[in-house]
Amino acid sequence: MDDVVRVRWEDLEGLCAAVFEALGLPRDEAEDSSRILVAADARGIPSHGVARINRYAEGILLGVIKGSIKPQVLKETPITATWDAQGAMGLSVSKKAMEGAIAKAKAHGIGIYSVRNSNHFGIAGYYSEMAARAGLIGIAMTNTAALGVPTFGREAMFGTNPIAFAAPALGGRLFSLDMATTCVTRGKVEVYNRDGKRLPAGWAVGLDGRTEEDPAVLLANTLVQKGGGLLPLGGEGELHSGYKGYGLAVMVDILTALLAGGEFGHAVRDLEKTTARVCHFFLALQMDLFRPAEEFKKDLSALLDQLTASPKAEGAQRIYYAGLKEAEAMEACRQKGVPLKANVWKTLTDRAASLKVTIPAVL
Amino acid sequence: MDDVVRVRWEDLEGLCAAVFEALGLPRDEAEDSSRILVAADARGIPSHGVARINRYAEGILLGVIKGSIKPQVLKETPITATWDAQGAMGLSVSKKAMEGAIAKAKAHGIGIYSVRNSNHFGIAGYYSEMAARAGLIGIAMTNTAALGVPTFGREAMFGTNPIAFAAPALGGRLFSLDMATTCVTRGKVEVYNRDGKRLPAGWAVGLDGRTEEDPAVLLANTLVQKGGGLLPLGGEGELHSGYKGYGLAVMVDILTALLAGGEFGHAVRDLEKTTARVCHFFLALQMDLFRPAEEFKKDLSALLDQLTASPKAEGAQRIYYAGLKEAEAMEACRQKGVPLKANVWKTLTDRAASLKVTIPAVL
Repeated sequence: MDDVVRVRWEDLEGLCAAVFEALGLPRDEAEDSSRILVAADARGIPSHGVARINRYAEGILLGVIKGSIKPQVLKETPITATWDAQGAMGLSVSKKAMEGAIAKAKAHGIGIYSVRNSNHFGIAGYYSEMAARAGLIGIAMTNTAALGVPTFGREAMFGTNPIAFAAPALGGRLFSLDMATTCVTRGKVEVYNRDGKRLPAGWAVGLDGRTEEDPAVLLANTLVQKGGGLLPLGGEGELHSGYKGYGLAVMVDILTALLAGGEFGHAVRDLEKTTARVCHFFLALQMDLFRPAEEFKKDLSALLDQLTASPKAEGAQRIYYAGLKEAEAMEACRQKGVPLKANVWKTLTDRAASLKVTIPAVL
Repeated sequence: MDDVVRVRWEDLEGLCAAVFEALGLPRDEAEDSSRILVAADARGIPSHGVARINRYAEGILLGVIKGSIKPQVLKETPITATWDAQGAMGLSVSKKAMEGAIAKAKAHGIGIYSVRNSNHFGIAGYYSEMAARAGLIGIAMTNTAALGVPTFGREAMFGTNPIAFAAPALGGRLFSLDMATTCVTRGKVEVYNRDGKRLPAGWAVGLDGRTEEDPAVLLANTLVQKGGGLLPLGGEGELHSGYKGYGLAVMVDILTALLAGGEFGHAVRDLEKTTARVCHFFLALQMDLFRPAEEFKKDLSALLDQLTASPKAEGAQRIYYAGLKEAEAMEACRQKGVPLKANVWKTLTDRAASLKVTIPAVL
């Protein structure tokens, strides 16, 4: 077991915001970015949380991630906007874009923002949940650096391209799906590598395009873009319908990069001195366009109750719905602080110390 | 090998339309329904094609599928409509709804139709492709009779709930994804049963909620709703991310039934003398809202070319993109006629003969 420290949620947000500000981001961008990073840890998704502080910090220091840049509005209608993010901080510019989509949805029923030339935006689910907390249906997608291999292929041609969808039930409860369209993400392979475990068949392929079970080999090959990569949701070939995950991944590339006019497919790459320029899609939709929102919420509550109360498989403890685990993790973090692995905490506090940022106490 | 006959596409459409008309559907509904059924066979999806003629016929004769019924407009805005289909023929009412969505998208940028209280609508991809052929992005979804089991569950709580997404490239080429959110559909289990093959682990679970490999047992249990059912895309438990397919299936229930105010979850059932009342979602979107459509199409063509030209896995023949196999199957059917299994042709022509409908020659 790795050692874990717990930090008060607000303290952790404050620390990360101060680090981002010390690195040169304006106050509002630093605060927004920090909030979204910490939200990942609080949901139990540490791969997209504070552990990435150095990646963002280096991007800012290299000038690959640009603070104080206003997105260029390429096109705007009452229900849509297309932005060129011009290399802005992916986290804060995405929050602004979803705020725009929400405002348009409240005024005109629907709002869709298409953003190109951005940077990594953290967890997609943060943005879809922004819409759901505003009483709307929310969708967020992004393309990412190519790491996924097409069905019957052996080279990375698309990213882990996540889809996030959120909708509100009664009393603040949310259905919130946030899923990579590859079977797993790189972060999960890294965990298997660290634990010395073999990868299950159906997660990834090697240079020959067939199942690769050695995580170290996979990571080495994909890091230098030698070949192989992650399999789409549904695994290798067609037996478990891997073409469905492959199709969803390409759909995300279409709705993000092709709609925004950004980079797509295998051209989306992290290089040594830069990071992939990625594209996002944000949608907010009023249920009231179709039926009273309160009736929708009531039905969604009933559906979620049906699912969690349905009979369990032999040996299973519990049935979840998308977003339930994450909601419970957030509640626990409000009570007990946000858990961080000791090495993640050290990286963050080392960075903070080097910037002369005050470090809060752990719990 | 089953014997196969080939029938000229127009002849087969004419025959099915005449059968539907003889059963009591008005001419336009009969023609639309026939066109959509035959389109499934022509795409190589016989499970959703003419083989279902008796199911539709019995629905019409029982009065469960109602001809000549106009959908009740529950709500309408410049960009949306909510319809109560009032038990109309699912195929023809869905075509009308997508036509409505396309018209609204052409006038106002986007059109979304939400339909409740409908019947089985055939292949979802027919409707998304209608939008794509009209130069738009198209999405179609439907909920279906409950047959899918939640992750860690053992009872059917949602349908095979397909998602269809289509977008146009240059020269009439389409990216067209049409996928059940369960790993496979009931039709595939039936094929394995007929062939005397065991089901691969990860397709379905039995009464205990654990892998069921006997297709006959699975079909018997699910037919009488005794328990068990199909697994979501990603399979059993969490190892291959079955919660993602589960999440997508619930998302489809939300975007169809919960938006329209229809039946959802395990309440959607085929009973002995009736069929499930299902709900649909149709969306059409102008790319021009975001960037010039011709630039989008050019990029999509480049993306599809990249995918098919990318290096193949060892032993693989070819890399496809969603919709390519189906487009090639349609082209072959235009040249050589639509293939039907001999027993399907016999069922259709027996029905036609009983209605004194003239039967065309096979090729």
